[in-house]
Amino acid sequence: MWVVPESEIAGLMTPEAAFDAVEAVFASMARGEAYNFPVVREAIGHEDALYGFKGGFDRAALNLGLKAGGYWPNNQKHGLINHQSTVFLFDADTGKVAAAVGGNLLTALRTAASSAISIKHLAPAGAEVLGMIGAGHQAQFQLRSAAASGRFTRVLGWNPHPEMLARLGETAAELGLPFEAVELDRLGAEADVIISITSAFSPLLLDVHVKGPTHIAAMGTDTKGKQELDPALVARARLFTDELAQSLSIGEFQHASAQNLISDSDVTAIGRVITGDHEGRGEAEITIFDGTGVGLQDLAVAAAVVELARQQGKAQKVDI
Amino acid sequence: MWVVPESEIAGLMTPEAAFDAVEAVFASMARGEAYNFPVVREAIGHEDALYGFKGGFDRAALNLGLKAGGYWPNNQKHGLINHQSTVFLFDADTGKVAAAVGGNLLTALRTAASSAISIKHLAPAGAEVLGMIGAGHQAQFQLRSAAASGRFTRVLGWNPHPEMLARLGETAAELGLPFEAVELDRLGAEADVIISITSAFSPLLLDVHVKGPTHIAAMGTDTKGKQELDPALVARARLFTDELAQSLSIGEFQHASAQNLISDSDVTAIGRVITGDHEGRGEAEITIFDGTGVGLQDLAVAAAVVELARQQGKAQKVDI
Repeated sequence: MWVVPESEIAGLMTPEAAFDAVEAVFASMARGEAYNFPVVREAIGHEDALYGFKGGFDRAALNLGLKAGGYWPNNQKHGLINHQSTVFLFDADTGKVAAAVGGNLLTALRTAASSAISIKHLAPAGAEVLGMIGAGHQAQFQLRSAAASGRFTRVLGWNPHPEMLARLGETAAELGLPFEAVELDRLGAEADVIISITSAFSPLLLDVHVKGPTHIAAMGTDTKGKQELDPALVARARLFTDELAQSLSIGEFQHASAQNLISDSDVTAIGRVITGDHEGRGEAEITIFDGTGVGLQDLAVAAAVVELARQQGKAQKVDI
Repeated sequence: MWVVPESEIAGLMTPEAAFDAVEAVFASMARGEAYNFPVVREAIGHEDALYGFKGGFDRAALNLGLKAGGYWPNNQKHGLINHQSTVFLFDADTGKVAAAVGGNLLTALRTAASSAISIKHLAPAGAEVLGMIGAGHQAQFQLRSAAASGRFTRVLGWNPHPEMLARLGETAAELGLPFEAVELDRLGAEADVIISITSAFSPLLLDVHVKGPTHIAAMGTDTKGKQELDPALVARARLFTDELAQSLSIGEFQHASAQNLISDSDVTAIGRVITGDHEGRGEAEITIFDGTGVGLQDLAVAAAVVELARQQGKAQKVDI
């Protein structure tokens, strides 16, 4: 078993490598070569923790395994971050465990990669203004990954707690991008691409906020009840997601679906755009990508990082 | 993370230690302190493999995690056994991975432990003749674990392929127990305790075979369609299991249940007998334990083996 510890991931993995790995597995999913297993997610009744498994198999890349871990809200007392996860890869030919990889940074990178992939394939032509809704830990990764496209010339930011925007502004400055904290109506009117990454339980970005051709990557909603977007905005947009069933049950599109503003067939897997099987934006004014997060993304970035770690002598071989 | 490789398990774990660990977790389950997560089980469409996860949490022992792996029927070409699994334990206080343990031998030991536990708590008074139905790899473990009770004076064996019984006879001889290959009617009439451990898909042991006070541990049925016992035999017995929902859906009791010969309330969790909450055999002539196998058993034996390995300096500490 190869072991790649959390401490090595930052030196091995880049937003670009995560982008390539996740784009490839979204395409495999669309071609029917990769699928996610049912998600196990349990409130275990200890430390208010949520724990579970996201597994899958990519027959094309022979990536098999799972991410295990969860959310421990009281971890600060242990000097640890609240999200803790580990990815385990298995040999698809024999069933033997093949690798154990620290999953914390990888989760942030694969989530950021999926919004960046949606921007590559769905942003309106000439898009250069990026709007960020949310300024937490994950927002930094989203901003870096989006900026890696090189297309953005400035960034607008809004957050429920405006004092947190300073940190996002510093990240933008690092990336050489002018940053401005604005209200949501200005953000919606000026941004060509919007990434929302909050833990909101009611709509933040309203239909009236958004003007002109816009792509929105809704990345915050991964649970029943969470919500970032006005269902009326969803109803008039062309809709894409990583995983259809998840999008309509626990993702951003759960609300418009429950209100019968959209039907299941209105939502397209982003992989179909990547493979050329779907035109993507077409003549639509608004496109929305609902990034719900799937186990196959975790396996894809973990497999990539194991390969890099082995090449660079940073993977430890352990007898198991 | 502590790593205990497959090659160390045989030198660390005993049937007795597995018995204690599994008996304790069955009791925790009955007290509502431990529960199993939904099982993920997937035919992955590669190498005819079945792959999945069995997880759970024991709040009393703070055992959290899963067994991952499955069944690779073509593994002989790789010089490997078909069942391949690994157990991962997590720190219930923080969500960090705590241990990775080879799961192949542990699976055999925990399965054998559960039938031995049922024999301890449910065998008729004075039971001394053991009947074995099945003579495959797992049957050896079942026999060893049952024999550890010291109560048996002889063993009768039957197998669909009688030529395989020689190996079981050798194991009995090793254990100092006379062994005789017999037909099922003699086995059912003479044995006080019967363990069935086959991959049968139709009843082997019939109601007419079984005479007098008898305890039967039905260990082979873990999938829809598999079956070892005559539903009429099940209908007249007092019924116990490790996990009620599993027993009635994929365990031996699925058939009597589907035929409405038993109702859900006829089946008792073995843990209730262990904790003294249920009388067990009582006045019943026939008792049956349906051992379906749960993730918590895997976690319990893995936690025990990690403890032993650490005490004996056989666990490797790996940074992750």
